[in-house]
Amino acid sequence: MSLLQLILGKPLATSDERGECVGPISGISIFGLDALSSAAYGPEAALTLLIPLGIAGVAHIVPISAAIIVLLFIVFFSYRQTIDAYPHGGGSYTVASENLGDIPGLFAAAALMIDYILNAAVGIAAGVGAVVSAFPHLQPHILSLCLVTLALLTLINMRGTKDAGLAFSIPTYLFIGSMLATLGIGAYRVFAAHGGSPTPIVAPPHLPTVTSALTLWLLLKVFASGCTAMTGVEAVSNGVNAFRPPTQTNAKHTLTIIIVLLAIFLGGLALLCRAYNIGATDPTGPGYQSVLSQLIAAIMGRGIFYYVSIASILAVLAFSANTSFADFPRLTRAIAERDYLPHVFIVRGRRLLYSHGIYALVGFTALLLIAFGGVTDRLIPLFAIGAFLAFTLSQAGMVVHWYKQPGTHWHRMLVNGIGAIATGITLLVVLVAKFLDGAWITAILIPGLIFLMLAIKRHYDGVTRDIAVDRPIDISRLTSPLVVLPINKWDRITEKSLRFALKISDSVEAIHVDAEECRDQLCELWDRDVAKPLTALNHPTPKLTFLESPFRFILLPLVDHVLELEAQHPERQIAVLIPELVVKHWWQTPLHNQRAQVLKLLLLLRGNQRILVINIPWYL
Amino acid sequence: MSLLQLILGKPLATSDERGECVGPISGISIFGLDALSSAAYGPEAALTLLIPLGIAGVAHIVPISAAIIVLLFIVFFSYRQTIDAYPHGGGSYTVASENLGDIPGLFAAAALMIDYILNAAVGIAAGVGAVVSAFPHLQPHILSLCLVTLALLTLINMRGTKDAGLAFSIPTYLFIGSMLATLGIGAYRVFAAHGGSPTPIVAPPHLPTVTSALTLWLLLKVFASGCTAMTGVEAVSNGVNAFRPPTQTNAKHTLTIIIVLLAIFLGGLALLCRAYNIGATDPTGPGYQSVLSQLIAAIMGRGIFYYVSIASILAVLAFSANTSFADFPRLTRAIAERDYLPHVFIVRGRRLLYSHGIYALVGFTALLLIAFGGVTDRLIPLFAIGAFLAFTLSQAGMVVHWYKQPGTHWHRMLVNGIGAIATGITLLVVLVAKFLDGAWITAILIPGLIFLMLAIKRHYDGVTRDIAVDRPIDISRLTSPLVVLPINKWDRITEKSLRFALKISDSVEAIHVDAEECRDQLCELWDRDVAKPLTALNHPTPKLTFLESPFRFILLPLVDHVLELEAQHPERQIAVLIPELVVKHWWQTPLHNQRAQVLKLLLLLRGNQRILVINIPWYL
Repeated sequence: MSLLQLILGKPLATSDERGECVGPISGISIFGLDALSSAAYGPEAALTLLIPLGIAGVAHIVPISAAIIVLLFIVFFSYRQTIDAYPHGGGSYTVASENLGDIPGLFAAAALMIDYILNAAVGIAAGVGAVVSAFPHLQPHILSLCLVTLALLTLINMRGTKDAGLAFSIPTYLFIGSMLATLGIGAYRVFAAHGGSPTPIVAPPHLPTVTSALTLWLLLKVFASGCTAMTGVEAVSNGVNAFRPPTQTNAKHTLTIIIVLLAIFLGGLALLCRAYNIGATDPTGPGYQSVLSQLIAAIMGRGIFYYVSIASILAVLAFSANTSFADFPRLTRAIAERDYLPHVFIVRGRRLLYSHGIYALVGFTALLLIAFGGVTDRLIPLFAIGAFLAFTLSQAGMVVHWYKQPGTHWHRMLVNGIGAIATGITLLVVLVAKFLDGAWITAILIPGLIFLMLAIKRHYDGVTRDIAVDRPIDISRLTSPLVVLPINKWDRITEKSLRFALKISDSVEAIHVDAEECRDQLCELWDRDVAKPLTALNHPTPKLTFLESPFRFILLPLVDHVLELEAQHPERQIAVLIPELVVKHWWQTPLHNQRAQVLKLLLLLRGNQRILVINIPWYL
Repeated sequence: MSLLQLILGKPLATSDERGECVGPISGISIFGLDALSSAAYGPEAALTLLIPLGIAGVAHIVPISAAIIVLLFIVFFSYRQTIDAYPHGGGSYTVASENLGDIPGLFAAAALMIDYILNAAVGIAAGVGAVVSAFPHLQPHILSLCLVTLALLTLINMRGTKDAGLAFSIPTYLFIGSMLATLGIGAYRVFAAHGGSPTPIVAPPHLPTVTSALTLWLLLKVFASGCTAMTGVEAVSNGVNAFRPPTQTNAKHTLTIIIVLLAIFLGGLALLCRAYNIGATDPTGPGYQSVLSQLIAAIMGRGIFYYVSIASILAVLAFSANTSFADFPRLTRAIAERDYLPHVFIVRGRRLLYSHGIYALVGFTALLLIAFGGVTDRLIPLFAIGAFLAFTLSQAGMVVHWYKQPGTHWHRMLVNGIGAIATGITLLVVLVAKFLDGAWITAILIPGLIFLMLAIKRHYDGVTRDIAVDRPIDISRLTSPLVVLPINKWDRITEKSLRFALKISDSVEAIHVDAEECRDQLCELWDRDVAKPLTALNHPTPKLTFLESPFRFILLPLVDHVLELEAQHPERQIAVLIPELVVKHWWQTPLHNQRAQVLKLLLLLRGNQRILVINIPWYL
């Protein structure tokens, strides 16, 4: 217990809850890692598609980033309103299901679950990928490294939300600081160089002057790829209730800081890339260097700053998986509360976490990592669909929400309406542009998950109907049960069981199976030690029955006999007493047959409402 | 069930037993494979040690084989007497423990168990090794091939003794036939060639004329290695009760045939090797060829006969492992009947076999094969110690047996006495000669096993003492138990449980843990639907108790409460009712929490003699 406590922390009482809540400082590293780290791969993904256009292509990143930033702010204002309206956590699922109905809610639920799992997998794979490109001899161990990182994240998160926030704040703030410093100094250099073309400290690879034409289709694909920069933005509104009071204000402040930072990153990156003529390099070719690496080297040189920044980027990428750990369990809990997922997701563990949500996340992430070999490029195309589907449904839900509120909320409806339309269009663009690259997998998984959740709901509804009762207890026919007691020989265990049987019922039947060898002896002992003393006291005497068993099966004849008895007495319950040896040490278990366990299982499988089992333990 | 029956055969009734018994024809292949196949490696092992002596060494094989044959016949006469004295199976274990006492019996038991497991492992490894030397590209798969062979043997044996005998008779009789033909024709050629030096059809590799001197130590080692040819001889006397009536006569005939054949093989091999100047070749060097292969090629040429013979040798070697399958389960059963091994070894399975003995044999054999990589050479030195220890103890036991019988049995005592002394000396020789090569492992394992068996015996004796009762049932204080019923809410499951509680007791306590959220509602429903109706009927009303749980643990407070209750009522039993949902399909299990199972486990672990559990199943 002490080792467990050392690793996971001591259990937290429900009343400790407020102490586990976070402010904006921890909030940014818990809920913002995903969104902020997107800046490290979103622009890169967009620029990669512009490679065929050469130096001319780099210029196009500015209007595309501008479009993404506009979209980002639309989503920002929409989510601020969501936080206002849903102070206990207004994830896309809650908003969509409360306002649009169950089925749209399930679409949001499925989309988000897939997205969180993908985010965890992509974050870990990207972080490990970056480490591996720095240390190529680790190449054969990519998958193992991914799984080890996953295990570490799990451990950190099992300690609880607050501890996780603390652990991640150092790399997060290092990342934010180095990004801001790079962008700030870069901007200063651009203004200082009057022609607007500053001299890089370390020159980026030269871009070829290709004159391939920009098509609308390419522009759409670039935009779709760039949009991966927006994943993770919904995290804050989903986790509102993790903030300390004033809850909503803290959540909104956190969201604002995250969005503004992300917008600065995206805008700054686009403008400086154009100013320094930095484009993407072929990630599969030799001499590959990421856009951020080129930019930092061009502005700051390759000193200590460079290496600290690159290290913080790696850390933030790997830890961006953590957003999934913070939000996925909250999401599954919300879904489970509406009976669409197993109820275990509602149970809070020792550290006030929804532990089973974490287990599920870890399990599926591990599966994904194993299935895709831990390679980021193969995972990315599945991504972003889920996020934008959730954005769209959430915002559409908010429009309905404001419409239903008393009073007029035209302004708010407009904000969310624009959000819904903008993200809806983006969703279509992303779906079309990435369909063949892997988005089809997501497009198949979402309906599959919805089907599963509907089946779960149907099961729970059936159970609820089945066991509901709204009347006083039925106190007719409280007759004692028929008691059946399998016996082997006359010993203290049998005596104890028989005594209990006599305490609770007047109709007791002892059963001995396959008695060829010792029938006479048992009969005699039974007569002498049980039947006679009880008859002398005028006490009802239990019956002793022998069952034949030509195939030496002990349990099957017993179960058959119990079922027969049940059929003969439709008015009574049959209680089967099962004596059970309890050994002192676990390693003594193989010394005793496990028939009691098997008998219990058989009775459960073949039995019915009127047959029940009573365990009589005998402690050695 | 149908597939299982196809593979394993249909279950056999206890009354079918005699039909599963065998005569001498099947008996030879079931109990003789081990002994007869020893001819394929015993002389070879002896000749290998004589390699340094070159052509002069080969001549020494004749007196050594003669000594082994004399020993063989001494053992033969001893075991014939054992079969007479123990018609129900007189394995070394039975004989030693009945006549010499428990500890010598355990020595025999441990020695035999180890020997049977080694025999299975060596047989399989030798067979696979021979196949691999014919098809060298299988080299990397030695271990897998060993394990597949083991699995096949297991499957054949799980069908029962008779089926196994049939499956193995073809290769056995092919082996016996080709050996007899080779030796007969060889003998004829030797007599026909008047100088006693016949011309080989295929000349064996030329032996160098070295003049290394023969030392006594070398002679002892050669004898010790040659003695591996005697392993497996005890099998018949151990399995007497597998023979059909007249049981003893059939067993003795089988033993006689096996011993005579083995003696012919050993003697013929020795004489013909000398006549044809055939010695062993270095098994680790290139151009290795086994002695039997050289001899058959020299006498019969390399035609079809050669290949059929070699194939039958391989089959017989691999299947010699089968002797272990026939005898090991009988041995473990005999030991278990005296409480020195877990009682599961006494239970007979669907095909009248002691299935658990087979499981244990297979498990340990697989372990050995994996530990030694399936290589015969590494396993052989562990061998033979066990066999000779068992021979010695068994024969010493027989001397005591005859001494105790009424009347004088000097003649029989003499036969067994000579046997005991001869095998005892051989045991010492083998132990000394092979100690450093691996016999020390056996020498450590035997006391280890004995220690384990003594511990098991002590446990069983303790249990027997603990539960023994030799008096009439105690019928004082048959007061109904205190019933504790954990409830969550008022539904039909709770109603069913409560009804059962009211049927068996007047003191019922319903317990709700962590009630903050719905305490009032539950109180109200309880009052309306349970308390009032029962009070109206003047029925004792069950108590409703709420337990606090600051850490959200549901089960621990419950268990603590039950233990407290038990302490407060030293005179009564506490019955804990545990309602349990039974799902229709196994995949619905994760939809319901498994608290009932965990609670049962906790109560078993922390509970005591007076706390018992009643399962109330609710079938959905």
